[in-house]
Amino acid sequence: MGSPGAATGWGLLDYRTEKWALLEKKGYQEQDLDPQISVITKLKGVSVTQIKALGNRLWDVADFVKPPQGENVFFLVTNFLVTPEQVQGRCPEHPSIPLANCWADEHCPEGETGTHSHGIKTGQCVEFNGTHRTCEIRGWCPVESNSEPTKPLLLQAENLTLFIKNTVTFSKFNFSRSNALETWDATYFKRCRYDPRFSPYCPVFRIGDLVAAAGGVFEDLALLGGAVGIFVHWDCDLDAGGSDCRPHYSFQLQERSYNFRTATHWWEASGVEARSLLKLYGIRFNILVTGQAGKFGLIPTTLTLGTGVAWLGVITFSCDLLLLYVDGEAHFYWRTKYEEAKAPKGTANPEQTQPASPPPHPAAQVP
Amino acid sequence: MGSPGAATGWGLLDYRTEKWALLEKKGYQEQDLDPQISVITKLKGVSVTQIKALGNRLWDVADFVKPPQGENVFFLVTNFLVTPEQVQGRCPEHPSIPLANCWADEHCPEGETGTHSHGIKTGQCVEFNGTHRTCEIRGWCPVESNSEPTKPLLLQAENLTLFIKNTVTFSKFNFSRSNALETWDATYFKRCRYDPRFSPYCPVFRIGDLVAAAGGVFEDLALLGGAVGIFVHWDCDLDAGGSDCRPHYSFQLQERSYNFRTATHWWEASGVEARSLLKLYGIRFNILVTGQAGKFGLIPTTLTLGTGVAWLGVITFSCDLLLLYVDGEAHFYWRTKYEEAKAPKGTANPEQTQPASPPPHPAAQVP
Amino acid sequence: MGSPGAATGWGLLDYRTEKWALLEKKGYQEQDLDPQISVITKLKGVSVTQIKALGNRLWDVADFVKPPQGENVFFLVTNFLVTPEQVQGRCPEHPSIPLANCWADEHCPEGETGTHSHGIKTGQCVEFNGTHRTCEIRGWCPVESNSEPTKPLLLQAENLTLFIKNTVTFSKFNFSRSNALETWDATYFKRCRYDPRFSPYCPVFRIGDLVAAAGGVFEDLALLGGAVGIFVHWDCDLDAGGSDCRPHYSFQLQERSYNFRTATHWWEASGVEARSLLKLYGIRFNILVTGQAGKFGLIPTTLTLGTGVAWLGVITFSCDLLLLYVDGEAHFYWRTKYEEAKAPKGTANPEQTQPASPPPHPAAQVP
Repeated sequence: MGSPGAATGWGLLDYRTEKWALLEKKGYQEQDLDPQISVITKLKGVSVTQIKALGNRLWDVADFVKPPQGENVFFLVTNFLVTPEQVQGRCPEHPSIPLANCWADEHCPEGETGTHSHGIKTGQCVEFNGTHRTCEIRGWCPVESNSEPTKPLLLQAENLTLFIKNTVTFSKFNFSRSNALETWDATYFKRCRYDPRFSPYCPVFRIGDLVAAAGGVFEDLALLGGAVGIFVHWDCDLDAGGSDCRPHYSFQLQERSYNFRTATHWWEASGVEARSLLKLYGIRFNILVTGQAGKFGLIPTTLTLGTGVAWLGVITFSCDLLLLYVDGEAHFYWRTKYEEAKAPKGTANPEQTQPASPPPHPAAQVP
Repeated sequence: MGSPGAATGWGLLDYRTEKWALLEKKGYQEQDLDPQISVITKLKGVSVTQIKALGNRLWDVADFVKPPQGENVFFLVTNFLVTPEQVQGRCPEHPSIPLANCWADEHCPEGETGTHSHGIKTGQCVEFNGTHRTCEIRGWCPVESNSEPTKPLLLQAENLTLFIKNTVTFSKFNFSRSNALETWDATYFKRCRYDPRFSPYCPVFRIGDLVAAAGGVFEDLALLGGAVGIFVHWDCDLDAGGSDCRPHYSFQLQERSYNFRTATHWWEASGVEARSLLKLYGIRFNILVTGQAGKFGLIPTTLTLGTGVAWLGVITFSCDLLLLYVDGEAHFYWRTKYEEAKAPKGTANPEQTQPASPPPHPAAQVP
Repeated sequence: MGSPGAATGWGLLDYRTEKWALLEKKGYQEQDLDPQISVITKLKGVSVTQIKALGNRLWDVADFVKPPQGENVFFLVTNFLVTPEQVQGRCPEHPSIPLANCWADEHCPEGETGTHSHGIKTGQCVEFNGTHRTCEIRGWCPVESNSEPTKPLLLQAENLTLFIKNTVTFSKFNFSRSNALETWDATYFKRCRYDPRFSPYCPVFRIGDLVAAAGGVFEDLALLGGAVGIFVHWDCDLDAGGSDCRPHYSFQLQERSYNFRTATHWWEASGVEARSLLKLYGIRFNILVTGQAGKFGLIPTTLTLGTGVAWLGVITFSCDLLLLYVDGEAHFYWRTKYEEAKAPKGTANPEQTQPASPPPHPAAQVP
């Protein structure tokens, strides 16, 4: 009863559901969500540190990018603390370390160590400075000072530029695209700077701009480090010929503090191994490329339509339920819709259904 | 005929299918399966090696974590073999190398090399030691000894702690969560240790516990190396306000043997380049973060229900088939369900519905 | 009307859609698309460089693989340019740098620097060589020469071998498989070489073969560097017992030029810090492992069938539409299919349908 009418009346909802799935979600397209991705990064520029003890020192990319290989995750040094000329030996632990402070040797059990210790306790309590006595340890001496940096040493790193060379290959559709190769002007990628409004497809980023776009303040990140995510997304509709298949960049400040320790080792003239311990602060850049490409395909269209048309059935069913159970005249509709079908005992059952007149239009029947 | 009845009778199966999809698979939720992920790692602690020739030597994180940047994949040195003071020159190949053993110069073709060689053959057969004669090579001399380590040198690495700082961002829902930031006690993450039962959300892991949880024996892995996977999974139901959005950790022993070679280079006083070749054994940790978040959405609910309600149609259809073909009284149901609809020849047509005989096959009725 | 007939007539399309989804897309299987993956790489072999100034020099893996840890992304040095013994000081900029050439000091604003500069201008215009005058800079001196290499120095790198040890774990099905462990011959993986036709499952690759399979020419890549993707795909049908669960390798030339700069630092006898700047050219290998495993599952089968059977409903509906609206005799079918159901005003009712009694509940009709 009334299925064409119901489709007309309730069909809007139905149509919108299908439209949604078919058009907005591009249900008619076969998707490749897993492109093969290649990322190469290159930093350019120089920076100067002015440290009284050392004089002016120029830093270039070989100095402040770690690792240097041009990978999609790299660390840009913006600040550092040096503990120069450590050698293996015995010295007082730093007072800031838990259980380091002492008044007598019995506070310093020999061989004890802790998660934050700089070495293994020798069992002696010795003078650290005029005001502190701490347990003596065996380790790299003298110990690191545990102070925090107060000003960034490589503030000019803001002006460095990062070039991201990115290629995506959608192997399902045998389609490949790079963010840097296809240009009408060979020097464009040497001169351009990324700008979200004026040059959104230039793959050369000024570090200061990157940090600002991620929502960070460069001075803060340069002082104590941080992590910035760079997301490159390719959304390619290959039915449109791939002309809109271009990278979209977005940026996220992921961490507000980031440092690690590393050391350079050498042999002193006396034959003793020495090291400089560096606590490096800086910005870790993490480039993540994602992509999807879609192209018309028969199977996804069929499947999406199949799900959509299921609603046609449920509407007929719901409409019946409404009339048969809810409506005030339900008893009458019961009689009209269902005849009792008894297995015949004879042939006595000739004219059960004799419609007086056909309805002019089914929509008129919808409640 | 009989569709409400069929729904009542067979509806259990139908209802369970839909429930499955809708509730167990959360078919009513829009999903974000691709969060933006940030991982920073930091190791703390010290360890001592006791080598007769070198005396006690303390190792800290700047010595035994490679690379030092705090990435999600890193290598913790637990053992090593040193070939100290190699220089470029000529020396006998090691007898364990294929085609290295010889009796005369003609066994050593000049310029020959192999995949496992330490250098290029000079064409001479020389004495390796009292019992072996091998081909002379040009390369880094003396050659590495190819022996296996017999005891781990950095067994105390078991007591190091690993801090994993992990942030996930579900950009589709504009929701971000860290495994370390939101706590009621500022020092909790300094003191706590991960324990699957008592502190499952503490992101500080003792290395020995990690290896045990992965199913490994620390002594074995420390001797010859290995690889351990740390999996962090976030399953966030944002309809529940995100209160259950917490990391779940699991561990897997991925490899039972792992080593690599690296070298430190220097210039000797004589102006000759020298190196120490290190064969490092240790545990590679590989932290993989995955996550998914779901939130009620109209489209997925509609689509899932759509698939589910499709079954309503098939039930009506199956029920009809059963009555019309299988049942003993099928002949009667045919007459009752189908009237023969012949196009009218005049207006004289009071008894359209008097099928002379049921059609032999329903296909005959298709226009 | 006619639904069994329509199913027979239009059913072919319907059947093919379902077959597609169910068999070709394996719609009856539960999928694990996100295996846990472990990759360890190891290079073997040696190479010789013949540089007049330095004599023959042998390179082994500790020299030409960066980083050395055996990760899934690594760089193989095939060529290099050295700028030896740089120290911090003042020297003329290289003429190839923008704004470096000058005739007088006023062309060289003090403190100026640029993206491609080697240092900060001191404000003086000085002689670079017999033909060029350039601005003096403060930085690492002397500056790098900006020349391109003309022949690869490590051409023998072609004969190195790469061993890829890869384990995939499908945790949903508790199934794990390695590309190297399960063999009938312990020395097979020591001797074999990957060949797409004759030994497609040998995980030991000759570098030259790899580059050729990716579509590159080794000599070209060795000269100026490049990037090669190695894709390992596991497609495991666990219903078949996992016997076909083996890796499939494919290769892609991702970039045709690749280099980066790094430096080695030391202290000169005079106490001055010096460095050797290396511009390294080489091939970056990027190993990407993907995998999927499927196993029969009730839910996916139900869902796929559900989508398929939705078409049964739409066929009935379309068939009706055709008869009721399009057919020339549509008016007659209207009359036949629909009776006007008016709510009864009394008992006065031309008795179209006189069921003996309405059924008390539809469930009673279900066979």
